[in-house]
Amino acid sequence: MKACIVTIGDEILIGQIIDSNSVWLSQQLTNLGIDVVRMMSISDDDPAISSALDECLAISDIVLLTGGLGPTKDDITKKSLAQYFKRNMVFDQELFDKICAYFNKLGIPVTELHRQQCYMPSDIVTLKNNMGTAPGMLFKEGSQWIVSMPGVPYEMKHIFSEALLPELKENIPSLDSIYYRTIRTAGVGETRLVELISDIIDELPRQISLAYLPSLGHVKLRLTTKEANAYSNQLDGFVDRISERLGIKVYGYDNIILEEALKRDFEKTGLSLATAESCTGGFLAHRITSISGSSSYFLGSIVSYSNDMKKNLLGVKAQTLKVHGAVSEETVLEMLDGVLKATGAAIGVSVSGIAGPGGGSVEKPVGTIWLAWGNKEKKKTRKLQLSKDRLKNIEYTSVAAMNSLRLFLTEL
Amino acid sequence: MKACIVTIGDEILIGQIIDSNSVWLSQQLTNLGIDVVRMMSISDDDPAISSALDECLAISDIVLLTGGLGPTKDDITKKSLAQYFKRNMVFDQELFDKICAYFNKLGIPVTELHRQQCYMPSDIVTLKNNMGTAPGMLFKEGSQWIVSMPGVPYEMKHIFSEALLPELKENIPSLDSIYYRTIRTAGVGETRLVELISDIIDELPRQISLAYLPSLGHVKLRLTTKEANAYSNQLDGFVDRISERLGIKVYGYDNIILEEALKRDFEKTGLSLATAESCTGGFLAHRITSISGSSSYFLGSIVSYSNDMKKNLLGVKAQTLKVHGAVSEETVLEMLDGVLKATGAAIGVSVSGIAGPGGGSVEKPVGTIWLAWGNKEKKKTRKLQLSKDRLKNIEYTSVAAMNSLRLFLTEL
Repeated sequence: MKACIVTIGDEILIGQIIDSNSVWLSQQLTNLGIDVVRMMSISDDDPAISSALDECLAISDIVLLTGGLGPTKDDITKKSLAQYFKRNMVFDQELFDKICAYFNKLGIPVTELHRQQCYMPSDIVTLKNNMGTAPGMLFKEGSQWIVSMPGVPYEMKHIFSEALLPELKENIPSLDSIYYRTIRTAGVGETRLVELISDIIDELPRQISLAYLPSLGHVKLRLTTKEANAYSNQLDGFVDRISERLGIKVYGYDNIILEEALKRDFEKTGLSLATAESCTGGFLAHRITSISGSSSYFLGSIVSYSNDMKKNLLGVKAQTLKVHGAVSEETVLEMLDGVLKATGAAIGVSVSGIAGPGGGSVEKPVGTIWLAWGNKEKKKTRKLQLSKDRLKNIEYTSVAAMNSLRLFLTEL
Repeated sequence: MKACIVTIGDEILIGQIIDSNSVWLSQQLTNLGIDVVRMMSISDDDPAISSALDECLAISDIVLLTGGLGPTKDDITKKSLAQYFKRNMVFDQELFDKICAYFNKLGIPVTELHRQQCYMPSDIVTLKNNMGTAPGMLFKEGSQWIVSMPGVPYEMKHIFSEALLPELKENIPSLDSIYYRTIRTAGVGETRLVELISDIIDELPRQISLAYLPSLGHVKLRLTTKEANAYSNQLDGFVDRISERLGIKVYGYDNIILEEALKRDFEKTGLSLATAESCTGGFLAHRITSISGSSSYFLGSIVSYSNDMKKNLLGVKAQTLKVHGAVSEETVLEMLDGVLKATGAAIGVSVSGIAGPGGGSVEKPVGTIWLAWGNKEKKKTRKLQLSKDRLKNIEYTSVAAMNSLRLFLTEL
């Protein structure tokens, strides 16, 4: 089964916004075992929409369109689709009642524009939108499905998950036969990972496929079968065997991210955490606190960007900074001691480095970063030698720090 | 003049990576006055490339392709293009010499694969790649141009700017006649902005167009003329008049971002800055330190996520937290006092709020965020009432904090 994703709207074509909707949709479809054969962004005019439909319907079974729905002047998608599929526009009383109720509750008067919005193409499946006023639309043309959803990301995601997905699963039995699991690892490269499990992979039957999905500091392994009934148990068995082989390199399964795994592991121990950051400049604390509820274990961070802050708030010795420099094993160890003392956290991590692109030297080139982590009794350190790309260095270092903490907990 | 952007590669279609190349290219083309009429991602196979070319050449003058060039198995773009445009593959000795010299210097042996890579389609303009081994290719077919570049972002950007752009400007004189300026504002919504300058905008001649480009907490105004010789002075005049009207709402022009403007303004005063963050969790410090050289004014941050850290490191009174709560004007004012004292910074900003999605109450719903900023003598506060989206709340708050600091400097 093949799909195309079409985004309608000029903001993407002029580079003003990133098309995150298509990224999300392609992940969802891929996970369902549907091959995305094309993604495209087009402008919100009739000829562009109509040629996009021509082209996409020639190569796919499902076309998902986002954008161009809503009570504004650029609400052209609905009319274009009605015209393209030769449907009349009919007034949807139920939708109008819902919109009236919604606006009455907010004390906002219902206007003619809202009324206009309730004319919908005939013979479609209306996909309910509980997050906004414009519903999604599903056109069934023979065996092909064309779906139009609003461009507002949370509305689109809601309609996809709550209205479209049940409809898809009911009508396309093969989707139910897709089964996949994701094994998430951190701190090990793709090449090494392949070496570690190659003998297990060789045993995979052709009905189970494996994909390596690497990103900065992480590799995900995804096992998929399109014959769930016959192979899901066997697939689970492979997940177990691979996990056993990889041991603590695996931080979780399926949708969990490293920040969530860290929270889970800390909550299990009941221990608290604080960070002392120089070159990451607060990004590590941001990653940790991007998860709602992280206050259950995270106390905070001392972002000691200046040497004075390292000395005054973390107790790093002037002598250490003078002799070894701010980017050194000695300094991160004193930063770690300092943050444990200042915050009372059970466990800490400290970072100091040259994120770049400026500030390097021959002995300490850009990308030299020191990490220390541990508790009062036991401390570990690590030196990273990264690139000249400031933001990538900051991001990679944060992943390395979180992973080091996660591994430290397993040793307690 | 119209353009299409085509990205080749499966990683985008499965949602594994975001197509940042197309975003960057569309910005560059838009700035040159070229209309991007379509962006698409396709898989790296021959039929997909060939139909994409058919479709794009039917609606545009320039087609830019990225990805699928390089010494690996998926180097299919070059062959597909040669076939599509009926060109022979010819050995490029100059390219081979360059690759040999490059690898010899690194002490890496040159392989047959590298030799193969030096076969290039005939009758093309080779676009030099000083950042990697695969050059870009420019096919001229009548009045239409087709450009293929590697997918590695820094290689692609380098080829576009250093090799393609001069070629474009030399051959398409109209590109030189594009002139545009961007006015960057923060802290004022699009609607209010339109009201403030509507009388000036009414005077714009039809040769000068204006676009409003809003993003979280910012609005950019872009003035463009396609007749630079005749209208650039007049356009500059409008930039001056709009800027005068908007006053301190304007933080800069053209490519500068708010983080850079903040650094510029602090460096002018010679004053130092520190932040005290609760709900932003270090993200504000991260934004500030995402700019290389920000240590010239930024001392650091105390990310006091827990109430104990607010008390012990920032000196917030237990009584204040008990009576008014952590999310209150009283608490952010004490946090501000505390961070100024603890770090010795001349200026500080503090943030405490409920980023969500959990943790709200009737009196303080999710999205309630308090900010305080100032120096020892003068302090200001502001309450934000934002959404339920945690990451958006954190981002918007950081923008609001940076903008408040920028405005504070103008009052000293």
